[in-house]
Amino acid sequence: MSDVTENPQGAAFDSSDSVRSAEPLRHVRVLELDEPLVLERGGRLERVQVAYETYGRLNENKDNAVMVCHALSGDSHAAMHDPGDSAGWWDILVGPGKSVDTDRYFVICSNLLGGCRGTTGPDSTDPGTGKCYGPDFPTVTIGDMIEAQRRLIDSLGIEQLLCVMGGSMGGHQAMLWPMMYPDRVRGSVLLATSARLSSQALAFDIVSRNAIMQDPNFMGGRYRHAGKVPDIGLAIARMIGHITYLSREAMERKFDATRMQPRDVPVRFEKEFSVGSYLGYQGARFVDRFDANSYVTISMAMDLFDVGATPEELTASFQRTDSRWMVISFSSDWLFSPQESQDMVRALISTGQPVSYCDVESKAGHDAFLLPENIGSYGRLIEGFLANLSGTIEQAPPVLEHHHSQTSIFYPGRAQRLDVERIVELIPPSSSVLDLGCGTGLLLESLKDRGNRNVMGVELDEGSVIDCVCRGLDVVQCDLNDGLALFADNQFDYVALSQTLQSIMDVEGAIREMLRVGHQCIVSFPNFAYHKLRKMLWEGRAPQVRGLLRYKWYNSPNIRFLTIADFREFCREKDIRIHRCVFLDTEEGRDIPPEEDSNLRADLAIFVLSRSEP
Amino acid sequence: MSDVTENPQGAAFDSSDSVRSAEPLRHVRVLELDEPLVLERGGRLERVQVAYETYGRLNENKDNAVMVCHALSGDSHAAMHDPGDSAGWWDILVGPGKSVDTDRYFVICSNLLGGCRGTTGPDSTDPGTGKCYGPDFPTVTIGDMIEAQRRLIDSLGIEQLLCVMGGSMGGHQAMLWPMMYPDRVRGSVLLATSARLSSQALAFDIVSRNAIMQDPNFMGGRYRHAGKVPDIGLAIARMIGHITYLSREAMERKFDATRMQPRDVPVRFEKEFSVGSYLGYQGARFVDRFDANSYVTISMAMDLFDVGATPEELTASFQRTDSRWMVISFSSDWLFSPQESQDMVRALISTGQPVSYCDVESKAGHDAFLLPENIGSYGRLIEGFLANLSGTIEQAPPVLEHHHSQTSIFYPGRAQRLDVERIVELIPPSSSVLDLGCGTGLLLESLKDRGNRNVMGVELDEGSVIDCVCRGLDVVQCDLNDGLALFADNQFDYVALSQTLQSIMDVEGAIREMLRVGHQCIVSFPNFAYHKLRKMLWEGRAPQVRGLLRYKWYNSPNIRFLTIADFREFCREKDIRIHRCVFLDTEEGRDIPPEEDSNLRADLAIFVLSRSEP
Repeated sequence: MSDVTENPQGAAFDSSDSVRSAEPLRHVRVLELDEPLVLERGGRLERVQVAYETYGRLNENKDNAVMVCHALSGDSHAAMHDPGDSAGWWDILVGPGKSVDTDRYFVICSNLLGGCRGTTGPDSTDPGTGKCYGPDFPTVTIGDMIEAQRRLIDSLGIEQLLCVMGGSMGGHQAMLWPMMYPDRVRGSVLLATSARLSSQALAFDIVSRNAIMQDPNFMGGRYRHAGKVPDIGLAIARMIGHITYLSREAMERKFDATRMQPRDVPVRFEKEFSVGSYLGYQGARFVDRFDANSYVTISMAMDLFDVGATPEELTASFQRTDSRWMVISFSSDWLFSPQESQDMVRALISTGQPVSYCDVESKAGHDAFLLPENIGSYGRLIEGFLANLSGTIEQAPPVLEHHHSQTSIFYPGRAQRLDVERIVELIPPSSSVLDLGCGTGLLLESLKDRGNRNVMGVELDEGSVIDCVCRGLDVVQCDLNDGLALFADNQFDYVALSQTLQSIMDVEGAIREMLRVGHQCIVSFPNFAYHKLRKMLWEGRAPQVRGLLRYKWYNSPNIRFLTIADFREFCREKDIRIHRCVFLDTEEGRDIPPEEDSNLRADLAIFVLSRSEP
Repeated sequence: MSDVTENPQGAAFDSSDSVRSAEPLRHVRVLELDEPLVLERGGRLERVQVAYETYGRLNENKDNAVMVCHALSGDSHAAMHDPGDSAGWWDILVGPGKSVDTDRYFVICSNLLGGCRGTTGPDSTDPGTGKCYGPDFPTVTIGDMIEAQRRLIDSLGIEQLLCVMGGSMGGHQAMLWPMMYPDRVRGSVLLATSARLSSQALAFDIVSRNAIMQDPNFMGGRYRHAGKVPDIGLAIARMIGHITYLSREAMERKFDATRMQPRDVPVRFEKEFSVGSYLGYQGARFVDRFDANSYVTISMAMDLFDVGATPEELTASFQRTDSRWMVISFSSDWLFSPQESQDMVRALISTGQPVSYCDVESKAGHDAFLLPENIGSYGRLIEGFLANLSGTIEQAPPVLEHHHSQTSIFYPGRAQRLDVERIVELIPPSSSVLDLGCGTGLLLESLKDRGNRNVMGVELDEGSVIDCVCRGLDVVQCDLNDGLALFADNQFDYVALSQTLQSIMDVEGAIREMLRVGHQCIVSFPNFAYHKLRKMLWEGRAPQVRGLLRYKWYNSPNIRFLTIADFREFCREKDIRIHRCVFLDTEEGRDIPPEEDSNLRADLAIFVLSRSEP
């Protein structure tokens, strides 16, 4: 993000929206809709034009089209068309060889209905009166915007979009597309968005609209007729916006050191502090390129967007869809929080649609989805997701875990892990499976290779989540210590927790959650009563061997030490039914037969569990 | 917090400031300063009057005076004077029998310099012109406000305040008082405040001022002369304020369920959503009771407040003080974050002044310090702190830990803990001591009883922190897993970690931090190679005995298992010097003599450590 204290005039790309000047855009095409648009909230627009740009080529099957949706104040210019072109608002993501590769995909981006960058909006001429609509422009919704986009893809001869994607309000569109037209979208990417605005985000919008509409120059929206512009109100709205787009930490980094060194920008706003000169500059500049009635219209469309306030409503909304989903939030985004993304993910999971989720670790706030800082994460997620949608995932040979490498050290020199083999054998090929702590997806891939179709992973590590997505696996990021709140009761035939139990603080809660979500659960863990471990403590030392227990007492990820006997007792006490057990000596690469003392001889135990029926 | 969707007219008390109507206040007294006020930023005010109220009686020694400082838009009416009086902004805290007990303390609250509730401000008459100052009122600072307050206590014959306290901008005053007048304040309570505003908080203030000052009715601040009021701008400023005073969660609780059911409040602002009707109502009401120039003046004073941007600057500022400190933040306060309080605490600790700190778990946001929700925590902290300041702590008999009860179960029936006795013996009476994981202060009290004067605790549990403060101990709340960032190198002679090592994830980091902060460190931990524990694993079960190791494998707070031999090896590997060791069998209540195998016989080990000198 460029910094006004460095170079205010050059800050061409530093917000949730494009911030170019209102220069006419080359490459913009305009579609005149051949039918009036009947609006969701009543009224109709007799003549509608849609401004759009496209990138790359539509293939012969017309199945490589990606619709990119812009946020509050963006436009159709998502990316540069050629090196001499002006910057686009998503150049970091869209272009030849980039994550949304225009050498492979046909990318479409249109200006929103109600906008002021080519598509019909309040500043357009009302064919009924011959004057601009101004405040008489009807209330439009995100649904109306999608209706205009749908007619656009009709005109391009596209039966089904490969993918629709967007961040913030662009995410609202990407979410609603599959709800309105389930058979016309194969996949959807939602970035930094929510099923409806939080009350806090809504409050900021309301104050912004109050600032615009109560500006005396607004004149009830008829400022054009009077030759005026509600410039103060619009600038105030933009300033509020800018604060909410940045994280607290990003603002600190940007302005703390130079607090008392404002730039002398040529604006009327307060310039006592550097952050003030930045906001004043951004606010004033926005007035030059954006129309106040458009701002009010579009922000109201965003505020009215609501596909569900409760889990039940949200599930009902997503039940109308039949898509593949990628949901991405950013850890420092406080305008559209990770929690709100998780609410959507929970609803999506409950409908059984394939979904992946990642909360990208970021310091950039809501703006993160427009900034290069975290493109290594969210760009790769989108790239992998698109490849998966278009069936072009490169089938890499199954790799051993590298993020969860402790689980593979049990098996030096082995191509396949014995415990993974055994777990696959314990699960019927027709079953649905949730793998908790799935790492980079070794078990999930083994299951898929064997024929299980409905498999999903849960993983905390961001790198592993990205790896899974890039390998075509569905995985959601969450911390097992927080439970399985994303999953419904009895959602899977099997829930597996492979060699992870010993690193969970709330073991009882985790197992309770597994038994809630799965009909049966498979748990594997290292046996602390393995003869070599017993011997070590007997001789006065904290047990430490190879593999999972190779760590020192002070740096081990393992914080729970249990024996097979302890686990049996635990199941008895908690009224958990044990269906099967498998005991392995993984060092010797053998199963422990029933006649041997498994608690002494096995270094790894696998249990198949379920709730006891009353 | 009352809810506008329930009863907008009755919402008498729901913000960081008093929200009463501008009715004349009974009980307000006015002091005319007998000398002009020379201002920090230049200029002088020839005639200044200070409006104030007092509660309770000044005692004969005049040493029971408590100065209460109000925030941005408050006034002198901190509390009701009698049952028929109008509500005060801190009635929950100040009054007979309350935490700031007006039966014991003489409470003073004055309206700020620059305010509009009785004290000289922009709306006062400039004696030079005979007209109101308006925009010609000079820039005032928090320091100027304190100067006015200082003259007030002079006039009351008070040599030294027992305590000065305040939240938000009131906290700025409570912080600056001891810096300006170190010998006139014995103690200071800082609530929900910071050493200077974050760039984010500053940005909100700037946008608010822009809204006011760019309102056409502001007329460069001369609106009174023109008979106008910049009502839109002032209301917008207030709306922004209200959003920042509430936590995200509080807004959700307040408005999410009734989103589309706004109240039909008689204001011109948007009322499409319930949160909008609330903000509109609050904004409009504020205009009736507050002056725009005052708002600009006071918020600028707050924004200019800066006692240190770096740790070094902050330490230098606090080095001018000689006070006892209580710092309180609220977990959901995003306007003045807990991190900012911790920065102050770190600086205070580095100066060696006695300080306690608690981050009160709260959902209420910045407003929390004005709301009854968490009064059970912050009220008790203030009450205990005041009792300590006035020497009226009731000496309760030493109690056994109740929050860290696991550490006492070792010693059923014993009045004193053997390990605590031994640790006290290991520490010279003249030493300064930091006790990590101090619980309710058993070791700290034992040390104080024995004569150690400079002792301090660190504890995570809020209830234990409150107990410590109420018993006159200095304790700061922090999570040992986050290290000892609040403490400087070599700050204490001894740092003790008693029976806590085994529940810390990052053991190595914790010991490194202890060795950085203390010249010597004392670590005690349960010995996992104790003969009874060895035997249990030998027989195939996870070790579990009485005392610290009485937990089951799946619910134990203990996540590190080490033996005396392991710890010796750890010290050797990490180049840590062992000065002394004490080994106990606490079940039998005896020391293990050197001729016995301590790794086999001791259930508890105590080590005295230091860094190896090169």
